Amino acid sequence: MTGPDASPSAPEHVVAVDVGGSGARLVAVPLRRPSGSDGDGALALTGRPVRITAAGSDAADVVAELVGDLLRLHPGVRVSAAAASVTGLPSLVPDPEALHDALRGAGAATTAVASDALAAHLGALGGRPGAVAAVGTGAIVLATDLHRRWHRADGWGHLLGDLGSGSWIGAHGLRAAVATHDGRPGPTSPALLAAALERFGPVDGWPAALYGRPDRAHLLASFTPAVADAARAGDLVATQLLRDAGTHLAESLAAALRPGIPPLAAVTGGIVGVGDAVTTPLRARLSALRPDVRLVPADGGPLDGALRLARSLAEHRPGDGTLVEPYAPWLTVRPAGAPAPPTAPPTTPPTAGTPAGKETSAHER
Amino acid sequence: MTGPDASPSAPEHVVAVDVGGSGARLVAVPLRRPSGSDGDGALALTGRPVRITAAGSDAADVVAELVGDLLRLHPGVRVSAAAASVTGLPSLVPDPEALHDALRGAGAATTAVASDALAAHLGALGGRPGAVAAVGTGAIVLATDLHRRWHRADGWGHLLGDLGSGSWIGAHGLRAAVATHDGRPGPTSPALLAAALERFGPVDGWPAALYGRPDRAHLLASFTPAVADAARAGDLVATQLLRDAGTHLAESLAAALRPGIPPLAAVTGGIVGVGDAVTTPLRARLSALRPDVRLVPADGGPLDGALRLARSLAEHRPGDGTLVEPYAPWLTVRPAGAPAPPTAPPTTPPTAGTPAGKETSAHER
Repeated sequence: MTGPDASPSAPEHVVAVDVGGSGARLVAVPLRRPSGSDGDGALALTGRPVRITAAGSDAADVVAELVGDLLRLHPGVRVSAAAASVTGLPSLVPDPEALHDALRGAGAATTAVASDALAAHLGALGGRPGAVAAVGTGAIVLATDLHRRWHRADGWGHLLGDLGSGSWIGAHGLRAAVATHDGRPGPTSPALLAAALERFGPVDGWPAALYGRPDRAHLLASFTPAVADAARAGDLVATQLLRDAGTHLAESLAAALRPGIPPLAAVTGGIVGVGDAVTTPLRARLSALRPDVRLVPADGGPLDGALRLARSLAEHRPGDGTLVEPYAPWLTVRPAGAPAPPTAPPTTPPTAGTPAGKETSAHER
Repeated sequence: MTGPDASPSAPEHVVAVDVGGSGARLVAVPLRRPSGSDGDGALALTGRPVRITAAGSDAADVVAELVGDLLRLHPGVRVSAAAASVTGLPSLVPDPEALHDALRGAGAATTAVASDALAAHLGALGGRPGAVAAVGTGAIVLATDLHRRWHRADGWGHLLGDLGSGSWIGAHGLRAAVATHDGRPGPTSPALLAAALERFGPVDGWPAALYGRPDRAHLLASFTPAVADAARAGDLVATQLLRDAGTHLAESLAAALRPGIPPLAAVTGGIVGVGDAVTTPLRARLSALRPDVRLVPADGGPLDGALRLARSLAEHRPGDGTLVEPYAPWLTVRPAGAPAPPTAPPTTPPTAGTPAGKETSAHER
């Protein structure tokens, strides 16, 4: 199956899409590098962040928009497989099939829809089993052997968890700023208050600036660089916050690294850029909780993971050496030739079922 | 000035409205009890909760709806003064003048718009100066001598503060539940997890149930009774949460009780119903921080405070023995005969200005 205007002589591509809370990206990469080609022939596009409403996430619309852009800008592109990494998939995407439909719009015969946690895992550990903490605006740990065992820790969003994430650090930094402003007893941080005043104006305006916005978690996370700056300048409250963030992330990794998961771990996402102030206490706490676990640098990000997935789909038949076995909600695959299923709305959330023969995941005990 | 169909022989009433995050109430009370009357002649109505959107709070619409109900159900009512207690007034109400307009719709000559923190203060301390913690879904402390000194602590909402409030307790209870579910290291609370599962269904559905809703703080606060139940049944995590809530509230009171404020304090709102598990540690911490402060039971709630305010407006001229001196944003008064000001949108938030001759409040240092 190819796009409507695809030329049979055009090189076959695989498409990967990463849909996140701060933006979306699409890459189309030749399945085999064309002979005599200079560049790598990759096409790259960017799109808007996903929106979360009462009806859930509109990730399928973001994918459809990017695929539409791809076909408009490169009408001759031939796509053999496409994979999407989608934020909030385990909880907030109302219908993963709509995402498959959107990907199939690119002309892909085979499509895969992965949670960003799984795509981050595939990107960070390059297809090796283990645990990956994906930490940007939010924080989720997925520990899996990529076949039978799937354990999740955290990823519950800024009101329920995401401990140690950008939104967690930013929220706690702003709480320290208002506590300082109010003159509460206890440690104060004039540095965080000054930084917050500079970014958000007078304190009286912060509630109005924050509560009416749909992207509250992202706004909270936008204060994390200021917390990192304050810590670098010696602010004790900021330093302690980053230390607590590292500790929380180590504890999320330890919670997910259940028996049967190889003791290999990585951390990926924007938190890595905050540096040693988070990663040193993370390493120390993980080493105390699980001295057997090897913490390695991440190979790549969720877009790399989605691309690895798309390439695996293009090169293998299901069950024949594929990278990872489909397991809803982390990963669903629609194979070549499969019709779209009937579009009746699901009566249970996509995470409610546990496929027979699988180990129960942490949240189904 | 009286309502269009008001009968000159009907008793004069004062009207009080309380607009909150979980509902609204209006009472109209005879200014003087009619001779030979059996009951107290009071009229009472209820309305919907305020909605917070990107444009701010729609409190003026709630007041207009209640006033419309009053005039429809009691077309002959004569209203001499009306006062509203409005949640979120310091930060989230875009235009307090719209609230005066809505109150004037009842036929009131004189209108007052008070922050719920001030109305709670007037209700709890009955017009005495001191500090009042108004603690329901949110938590704010207002310390004032009702004339020159105004100090606020907290009231920043569930993402930035409201420490010790219903939303704070509920959020922390749910965080303990998901931490238990995830199997994180540290104290766990099977009781809170069981209570949360019973109320909100499987954990996987909690993010979707919470993040898309406009009333997130209220939903978080709805879990507070379950935390109180768990504490009563001996759950250590729940007990510690309530202890921390009491400590936070004492620290908010201490932060607001600046020099010049008489050392008198009260706590009002739904938190009082949680009982000793919160109030004992609150009392202990306040006594440690400020042994001179006398903590007294609250006389009444914000509707009582608004009624006291309306009655004061009906019985006194401004500056002549009035209960409290107007000070935006805590209190604005539109006197009899004053025209509505031009309705050009304000270019600065209503809290930005400090009237000349006032002590700066805590948030304008």
